[in-house]
Amino acid sequence: MKRLLITGASGFIGRHVVELARARFGDVHAITSRALGAQAGVVWHQADLLRAEETRQVLERLAPTHLLHLAWTVTPGAYWTSASNLDWLSASLELGRAFAAAGGQRMVCAGTCAEYDWAGGILSENTTPLAPTTLYGAAKLATGQVLEAFCRQVGVSFAWGRVFFTYGPFEHPDRLVSSIARALSRGEPAECTSGTQLRDFLYVEDLARAFVELLDSPLTGPVNLASGQEVAVRDIAAMLGRIGGRPDLVRLGARPMPEGEPERIVADVRRLGDELGFKAEVDLAVGLERTVTYWRQATLLEVPQ
Amino acid sequence: MKRLLITGASGFIGRHVVELARARFGDVHAITSRALGAQAGVVWHQADLLRAEETRQVLERLAPTHLLHLAWTVTPGAYWTSASNLDWLSASLELGRAFAAAGGQRMVCAGTCAEYDWAGGILSENTTPLAPTTLYGAAKLATGQVLEAFCRQVGVSFAWGRVFFTYGPFEHPDRLVSSIARALSRGEPAECTSGTQLRDFLYVEDLARAFVELLDSPLTGPVNLASGQEVAVRDIAAMLGRIGGRPDLVRLGARPMPEGEPERIVADVRRLGDELGFKAEVDLAVGLERTVTYWRQATLLEVPQ
Repeated sequence: MKRLLITGASGFIGRHVVELARARFGDVHAITSRALGAQAGVVWHQADLLRAEETRQVLERLAPTHLLHLAWTVTPGAYWTSASNLDWLSASLELGRAFAAAGGQRMVCAGTCAEYDWAGGILSENTTPLAPTTLYGAAKLATGQVLEAFCRQVGVSFAWGRVFFTYGPFEHPDRLVSSIARALSRGEPAECTSGTQLRDFLYVEDLARAFVELLDSPLTGPVNLASGQEVAVRDIAAMLGRIGGRPDLVRLGARPMPEGEPERIVADVRRLGDELGFKAEVDLAVGLERTVTYWRQATLLEVPQ
Repeated sequence: MKRLLITGASGFIGRHVVELARARFGDVHAITSRALGAQAGVVWHQADLLRAEETRQVLERLAPTHLLHLAWTVTPGAYWTSASNLDWLSASLELGRAFAAAGGQRMVCAGTCAEYDWAGGILSENTTPLAPTTLYGAAKLATGQVLEAFCRQVGVSFAWGRVFFTYGPFEHPDRLVSSIARALSRGEPAECTSGTQLRDFLYVEDLARAFVELLDSPLTGPVNLASGQEVAVRDIAAMLGRIGGRPDLVRLGARPMPEGEPERIVADVRRLGDELGFKAEVDLAVGLERTVTYWRQATLLEVPQ
């Protein structure tokens, strides 16, 4: 009998994962540091993963066979440089040890495209140099490499799902897609850069399913979780303007391009497609439509200011 | 005024570093987890670096300008796979944070040749892929990469000295050179592999001086601390036999070659030589002579069994 434990379960990706995991895993447990959620078929546990002793107690008590570790510091903007990246690195190692000690079999964690050398063209698990330029990228890379070595040694199957760009309902309002969709839903201008950057976006439900399928597979090592399709940020902004019925509010070039902004971040998805057999189901146009709808409803439900 | 703090100061490399550092740094402090040493010109502090709060208190109190971090789990054999590598990774990150918070300016840590892909020929900081096969190598690599990113962000100058192979007085008796020299000094056979492996050995006093010179330089990033000379293990064993006057006791081929033993581990030392200007002073023959003398005296001083 499989028993799954999910960390970061109340986060943007986590909440979509929890929903999907119930279909594949009989017994789903979710850790959150926030107030406890409640959901049919899921047992919620409140724990602070930054406290090693709390982590150990939860793992020992639950003895999960599978672990999906999504929790990390994610405050938009701040997470690139926050010293709390070091705390999450240490906490993730503690989590891995506690999972192995409790008899765990299969662990999947969230990595990031920020581990790669972004100058490397189409970013591949096998050939692109790993050269993070940020503390966030360095801490994630370190976590993955050390957990991979540790798991190999103790006989736990380990995979590292590198997340690229995602979007969808429940995203933090300060991210790219959410901030534009939200502005449009409020009738406010969405001030953007020139938007020439090429990015690889995967709808959050597809990303969540990629995590669940990876978890339920024997694939090990790093796996890019992305669409493999590149799209210019300005095209996304324009699509949001059309879908939201207010193309006039999208102000491309209103903000300067951040210094050092990489031109192109696109994934090689052959491992995901050929080895895992995963196929994205939600097109960009459909995903953006759902996101715009979500923010319209969210705006309607907000208390007037 | 420079104030230097050394961790692992009572270890094999550390004790040689402490001796040399006094000439370059006016104010030398040394941390050890063992009983306190006593030495002219050095202030010893007893602290357990695995307890973050203890680390923070020492750093806050001392406010060193320079930090040389040598402490790690080093039990021969066991350190390659010990889960305590994860503890030392976390402890090293805490140390770096505490150093930066206390106003530190320059940090140098001990890395290892085990971070490299050993199939890579002459191992270079700039071109050899980083692909540790052991938990020890993975944890060291992770520590260096994350501390480098962290230090860059907070404005601390950071260098990472990759140690290859070393030998000399006070080495743990179970290491290659020490175990042979010790056996010979006792008139016991020294059972070796066939000894065809090529290794890069640097005498411990030279290694200690390399660390001190690196610390007192503006060089940043990874720097191989090695001789750049390759020597076969069987040649070292034979030299020890001759120097110890008992070549008959050196039994090459008496032990099987460990599985996966790399054929060649040799450093590119251009950064060390050209950029730092370091030059080794103790030839292998001289260093081995001193080591044999040390073990003869140590054996004479042992209580008869």
